[in-house]
Amino acid sequence: MGKLATRLYVEEDLTAGAVVGVNHQQAHYLRSVLRLGRGAAIALFNGRDGEWLAKLEGLGKGWASLAVQSRIREQSESPDVWLVFAPIKRARIDFLAEKATELGCRRLLPVMTRFTAMERVNVERLRANAREAAEQCERLDVPLVEPPQPLAKLLEAWPPERRLFVCSERGSAPPFGDALAKAAEPQPAAVMTGPEGGFAESELATMARLPFVTLVGLGPRILRSDTAALAALAIWQSVQGDSSARPPSPASAEGASEPDLAD
Amino acid sequence: MGKLATRLYVEEDLTAGAVVGVNHQQAHYLRSVLRLGRGAAIALFNGRDGEWLAKLEGLGKGWASLAVQSRIREQSESPDVWLVFAPIKRARIDFLAEKATELGCRRLLPVMTRFTAMERVNVERLRANAREAAEQCERLDVPLVEPPQPLAKLLEAWPPERRLFVCSERGSAPPFGDALAKAAEPQPAAVMTGPEGGFAESELATMARLPFVTLVGLGPRILRSDTAALAALAIWQSVQGDSSARPPSPASAEGASEPDLAD
Repeated sequence: MGKLATRLYVEEDLTAGAVVGVNHQQAHYLRSVLRLGRGAAIALFNGRDGEWLAKLEGLGKGWASLAVQSRIREQSESPDVWLVFAPIKRARIDFLAEKATELGCRRLLPVMTRFTAMERVNVERLRANAREAAEQCERLDVPLVEPPQPLAKLLEAWPPERRLFVCSERGSAPPFGDALAKAAEPQPAAVMTGPEGGFAESELATMARLPFVTLVGLGPRILRSDTAALAALAIWQSVQGDSSARPPSPASAEGASEPDLAD
Repeated sequence: MGKLATRLYVEEDLTAGAVVGVNHQQAHYLRSVLRLGRGAAIALFNGRDGEWLAKLEGLGKGWASLAVQSRIREQSESPDVWLVFAPIKRARIDFLAEKATELGCRRLLPVMTRFTAMERVNVERLRANAREAAEQCERLDVPLVEPPQPLAKLLEAWPPERRLFVCSERGSAPPFGDALAKAAEPQPAAVMTGPEGGFAESELATMARLPFVTLVGLGPRILRSDTAALAALAIWQSVQGDSSARPPSPASAEGASEPDLAD
């Protein structure tokens, strides 16, 4: 069947006959933005059970209940790529969480580097951005957003089978696309971008010696942190990700024209 | 020599011995943000004469004069790719102009499509965003920002030797990266993205019949207009652009840590 224009992420299990609630913001969206009434059809997903058709059963100020009916799409996971990034200022970090989600990133890991100017990260806010972007872009999963951690700690605990592509403006580094094309076969990956001040020479030197790290370049221009992260994710998806898949159905294009919860 | 941290775009010709002025915003930036004094070294570019070392000669409230000394870098042009995009709301269109500039786009063409919600485009504002992003990312040219035009008019006047890659969420379309890899040799190109509502079926059908158009896909997720444009430009640069080049010099990484004029 065609996809539904309205998609919401919920925490609860989704099974035929279940009745689930939505959060305050989603209820407001259904009632006051979309002005839906009882019986309206909505798509629900929780990152585990696929996408389900649900009917709006009860609706009040700040609450809504939905009757789960039948599964529309089987659960699928986004390609296995993570984004490790040095936190940047608010408008840009919101944009980054949204775009990384649209670009199919499975996990977002804020990392504190030597020149990172931001001291705190609103992880809950990033999670909300990721959830809303997932609703919007028709993903069936929502990226995990980790709490920030120091670079040294992140590297110590790094899973060695996951290739870490560090975007470097300094020294010699092959173009990211070439590094990916050379890879024998796709493997779990992560792209890492530094703060606006770049990585410290010592940070790059340390990482360059790690067996799971590949330093890569993104061309001759000095990209902002957020631009570098998005470019790297887009290139990874194009070479090793799911870029050959198509959106679930023509109708889903309307999904992109909706006002999003963030508005 | 190493690159200078402060780079400004000027309109005037740059030759040894010339004395040039900067605009009010740039003068404020030099005086009140960077707190520079007479004799400070600054890099200037105008998109024609390369990059020049200049010394701050006179500085007042809203004005500054710079003595042009010697050329630091020869003029170079960004790769020959344009971005054709349906205007989107303000914060997102600002991001788009900034990111497209960082991603080496040579020309930005706003186009009015059937489902384009925006009626007016602040072209001067987009030009300012492009200028500031060029200063920041160390380009030696600034993308041209055209006034908006209707889709039909744009297509009628399209230069047939320039391949137009239209990002489509509907119907069958090869992944953009594959379409580029298949191309016999690099040719002048443009990527085109629709509004949040997507292209109309009739618009896609019309464009699909044009000899210079290739419909392409960007994967299974429904990307926002700005995300699609940035992803497409990043992929183009990776496959056919200048992604194998490196930033001018290590020192230039500091350029990215400056407060930018937009702040």
